[in-house]
Amino acid sequence: MSNEKTSWQQVAELITAKNSAALLEYIDTLSPSETARTISRLPEETRLQLFTLLSPEDAADVIEDIPEAQAADLVEEMPSNQAAAIMEELDSDHLVDVLGEMDEDTSRAILAEMDQEEAREARMLLEYDSDCAGGLMISEFLSYTSDKTIQDVLDDMQANREEYGGYHVQYFYVVDRKGKLSGILQMHDLLFPSRKTPLSQIMISSPLSVSDKASLAELEDFFEEHHFFGVPVVDEEKRLVGVVLPGAIEEAVNKRKTKNFLNLSGIVGGEEFRTMPLLTRSGRRLSWLSVNIVLNIMAASVIAMYQDTLAAVITLAVFLPMVSDMSGCSGNQAVAVSMRELSLGLVRPGEILWVLAKEARVGIINGAVLGVLLGSIAYFWKGNAWLGLVVGGALAANTLVSVTLGGMLPLLLKRLKLDPALVSSPLLTTVTDMCGFFFVLSFAAAVLPKLGGM
Amino acid sequence: MSNEKTSWQQVAELITAKNSAALLEYIDTLSPSETARTISRLPEETRLQLFTLLSPEDAADVIEDIPEAQAADLVEEMPSNQAAAIMEELDSDHLVDVLGEMDEDTSRAILAEMDQEEAREARMLLEYDSDCAGGLMISEFLSYTSDKTIQDVLDDMQANREEYGGYHVQYFYVVDRKGKLSGILQMHDLLFPSRKTPLSQIMISSPLSVSDKASLAELEDFFEEHHFFGVPVVDEEKRLVGVVLPGAIEEAVNKRKTKNFLNLSGIVGGEEFRTMPLLTRSGRRLSWLSVNIVLNIMAASVIAMYQDTLAAVITLAVFLPMVSDMSGCSGNQAVAVSMRELSLGLVRPGEILWVLAKEARVGIINGAVLGVLLGSIAYFWKGNAWLGLVVGGALAANTLVSVTLGGMLPLLLKRLKLDPALVSSPLLTTVTDMCGFFFVLSFAAAVLPKLGGM
Repeated sequence: MSNEKTSWQQVAELITAKNSAALLEYIDTLSPSETARTISRLPEETRLQLFTLLSPEDAADVIEDIPEAQAADLVEEMPSNQAAAIMEELDSDHLVDVLGEMDEDTSRAILAEMDQEEAREARMLLEYDSDCAGGLMISEFLSYTSDKTIQDVLDDMQANREEYGGYHVQYFYVVDRKGKLSGILQMHDLLFPSRKTPLSQIMISSPLSVSDKASLAELEDFFEEHHFFGVPVVDEEKRLVGVVLPGAIEEAVNKRKTKNFLNLSGIVGGEEFRTMPLLTRSGRRLSWLSVNIVLNIMAASVIAMYQDTLAAVITLAVFLPMVSDMSGCSGNQAVAVSMRELSLGLVRPGEILWVLAKEARVGIINGAVLGVLLGSIAYFWKGNAWLGLVVGGALAANTLVSVTLGGMLPLLLKRLKLDPALVSSPLLTTVTDMCGFFFVLSFAAAVLPKLGGM
Repeated sequence: MSNEKTSWQQVAELITAKNSAALLEYIDTLSPSETARTISRLPEETRLQLFTLLSPEDAADVIEDIPEAQAADLVEEMPSNQAAAIMEELDSDHLVDVLGEMDEDTSRAILAEMDQEEAREARMLLEYDSDCAGGLMISEFLSYTSDKTIQDVLDDMQANREEYGGYHVQYFYVVDRKGKLSGILQMHDLLFPSRKTPLSQIMISSPLSVSDKASLAELEDFFEEHHFFGVPVVDEEKRLVGVVLPGAIEEAVNKRKTKNFLNLSGIVGGEEFRTMPLLTRSGRRLSWLSVNIVLNIMAASVIAMYQDTLAAVITLAVFLPMVSDMSGCSGNQAVAVSMRELSLGLVRPGEILWVLAKEARVGIINGAVLGVLLGSIAYFWKGNAWLGLVVGGALAANTLVSVTLGGMLPLLLKRLKLDPALVSSPLLTTVTDMCGFFFVLSFAAAVLPKLGGM
């Protein structure tokens, strides 16, 4: 095993040596994911020292490379004025994302220390839901009044070369004196006409735009239909307030998928990184587990009610977990298909009966197959056909219950404005466990004499 | 309830009336997700007729709006020559994605009917893994030799206005006579210098590029570092072969997340849409369920081995599912965190011991909390402290096992080049179930006299 230093050991050494230049040079060699990893493995005091050694611009570059939740944690550790200097260097949309991940008091303190104009803009952007046009837009764009000429635009671009270098300029927006959007131009359109041409003559008038309240779904549809490089965002008075880039939409969709995946797996209330404090990680996981243990007790109480049946036929205890587990698997498949179809718009939350019908068919077939399989295994093991019928029949019935319920749940939850990814799984598991235990034990109770003492 | 026709009823009527113009007009009013939904609900024969009524260009527009798996199913239903005419109208990257979703015979038949040049290009693109630069790039780009002037470029753009309208032109590429990439220009760079200037004087020489074999992870890192609008892709001889747009990366990341989500939930072997044939849906789900039932039997056999202990203390049967379920939940949380950290690069597949240490700490704390909770419930229910110790201790031990195993599994599987999302869950569930049953029953067997007959 080599004695090669890890990247965080390297960085820690450079920090201790207070060697800013070498530190920056080293960090530049790291890819964004390596940067994120390195920073997360530094001890807290070393991390804070890191940011005092970097200039605000360089610190902002580092911040932009790492996951937002991690960036927020880092920035929260710093004194507000240091944090404010760095935050001012971030793009508006990134700034808002990171501030949004912090607790309110800290973000307010940082905003108070920032340049007033930037803070005002950030506060305005923070007002928006993170998932609507206003929350996804950038406020850096180029706009001109319609009486300006192409030459004016070129002069402006030359004069502000450095500042505009950071903008994602694809379009130029034309506004009236009140800031209302009236036209749009592509860079392309500046190439051919005479430079004295006023913008009003070459712009596309009344361009497509979206409201700042437009939802993520509306934006997704918009960019599916129009392969633009960006769409202007207007407020209620039709004033141009920002631009949404397609990349921001994809990022938001990505975030939603990640959140669904985490919620489905029981990681709730935000990201968990293993470098977070132990008690934070433990506590957050327990908040989910404690809900589950209560649901589990509810399900297990069904078994408790049938203890006598169980005492008479111990063998059933071997099949109870099988029936509940298999039904859980079948149900999760149905939940996943519903969530996928909902996100693609292939099914609407109101189409519960249609989903029920589609799932019932699969439930009957798969229930029959699995039921016969399990029943045969039970029969061959214990030589009792009635045992086979009981456990096989219970699995068949419970498969039908779980796929129909699993299919309908995400639609129902969506109609109730609840989060399907968070609620479906525990709810489904509890109900199918209860039903599964109930079917096995009540079927057995019904034919108890035939089962002998097993 | 209104007697309003559904969108697919409207479309079906227009198809039966063979009214192409009205049909196209109606479809244009639908958003992409509405289009996808409408088409999926049409009966198969009606769908086929739909595409005979639309021109290839219009049919391609519709195809571009719907999910690729659905598009592939549709195109597979058509005669090859009809399919080829439509496919020729698609952008190269979309064409390759849809062809990639079909079975090989059908895609070969369609390629044989297509325009030779386009088919050749498509076959070349299909050679690439869908997840590397070659598989994600578009082959529509503008390139010029370095002796050309700005005026030449402008003339070319004017002359080919219509064809270029569909290209995502942000950059112009400068190549040598052999097609090797030598420089890059932005649209912006054409605005200011004299039009007689040769490109060699204004281009950025030796621009950044990626190999056609570059992996998705490398591309993700690249676009994280450089906020470009696209990156040129070169083959081994440094010839320019295509351009990767950031949107294509996001799309690929999105696809991977969706696939992980589906695999984790037991939907394997591709997307499932409820409009697919019943037996396809049923069969695919059963392929996953049949593996699970075997694993379940393995786990349940532990219970079978301890039937005597169970017979002596029936109450344990109530706690068996609780212990296995709760451990499953804890384990899934650890799996999710590992998968998330792997995807962000915050942890590397080799860091198994680090993950073990981090998870063990959480496992001990959460195991203790849950164990005490369950043990207390058992004690208060049956008044037997030993029962509490047995079930509580078993849950504590199994929690520790499941979180450490759950944390390590995705890393181990990644090292073995297996799919973490597909394999982690059933493997983890089986092992934790077996351990859980074993802990409860063996602890109970160890203190059997103290448990009385419950």
